[in-house]
Amino acid sequence: MSNIAKYVFNHTMIRVKDPKPSLKFYQDVLGMKLITSSVNESANFTLYFLAYVDKVPETKEEQMKLAFSIPGVLELTHNHGTESDSKFEGYASGNKEPGRGFGHICVAVDDIEKACERFEQLDVNFIKKLKDGKMHNIAFITDPDGYWIEIITNPIYGKAPI
Amino acid sequence: MSNIAKYVFNHTMIRVKDPKPSLKFYQDVLGMKLITSSVNESANFTLYFLAYVDKVPETKEEQMKLAFSIPGVLELTHNHGTESDSKFEGYASGNKEPGRGFGHICVAVDDIEKACERFEQLDVNFIKKLKDGKMHNIAFITDPDGYWIEIITNPIYGKAPI
Repeated sequence: MSNIAKYVFNHTMIRVKDPKPSLKFYQDVLGMKLITSSVNESANFTLYFLAYVDKVPETKEEQMKLAFSIPGVLELTHNHGTESDSKFEGYASGNKEPGRGFGHICVAVDDIEKACERFEQLDVNFIKKLKDGKMHNIAFITDPDGYWIEIITNPIYGKAPI
Repeated sequence: MSNIAKYVFNHTMIRVKDPKPSLKFYQDVLGMKLITSSVNESANFTLYFLAYVDKVPETKEEQMKLAFSIPGVLELTHNHGTESDSKFEGYASGNKEPGRGFGHICVAVDDIEKACERFEQLDVNFIKKLKDGKMHNIAFITDPDGYWIEIITNPIYGKAPI
C-alpha cells in the first residue's frame, strides 16, 4: 500500500478574477515567488503556483517538481475572461452567506507590527487591524478577490498567537 | 521593516460541521497528525490544527510553536452546535454557486494508484477517480463536509501531474 508517512499537504487552490493584481499582491505584498504556471488552452484556464522559496528553478521540469512536492504552495486558478466580464460578480470569500465554508489562509511573519505597518503603507485592505477587537496579536487582510489572509507572528520569532 | 524572506504560508482554515468525522478523516484516511487544539469558550468554537509531522510535541507550548511555524498546516474550525443542529445546512465547498471561490486542498502522495485503492476500500467519496475524465494522474476526493481534496503523485516519487 502507499506510505501515508510520505504524504504532503502540498497546496491550496483559490480562484481569482484577474491574475495581474493577484500575482502582484502575492509576490510584491506578501513576498511569495511564482514557481510556475500552466495554461490549459482547451479548458480556458491558467494555473499559477506560488510559494515561499529561496529560488525558482530555471527549467520547467524542476519548477513542476518543486511546485508539486513541497508544502505551503498557493495555486491560483484563472478562468480566462472573468477579468474583463462586466457580468462576473466575483468569487465568494467563504466567510459569509451564501457560500460560507472556507475561512482563510495564514501567513506567519517575523515581526507582525512592522509587517502590518508595511501593509498599511501599501494600502492593503484590512478586515482586522492589530488594534481592533480583543486579539491584538493577529490581523486579517484581504487579497484582490476578497479572500481573507490571517497574519500572525511566527512563534520562532515571537509569541504564538494563541 | 519586517523581513519578507522569513514569511511562511502557515495554514489554511476551513469550517467543519462536526469535528469527530473530520478529525477521523484527516487522521485515519489522509494520515495527518493532530498537533494541537484550542477551545474558545466565550465565542463557542474550537480550532484543530493538523499537519504531516513525524511527532507531536508533548507540551502545549511546543505544540503551538510547531502549529504556527511550519507550512502545510490545516486548521479546522468547529462552531459549537452545528454538529447537532438539524437546521444547519452544511458548509459550501466553494466549487459551485452560490459560494464559488475556494477550490480545494491537495495532498501529494507516493503512489497514487495504491493511495486511491486504499481510499476506495475505506469508502471515501470520489469527485473524480483516476480513470475518470482525461487526466488519469489526478483524483479528487471529498472530506466529510464536502470540501474537495486533490490527490496527486509527488514528483519526488513519480511523474508530476501536469
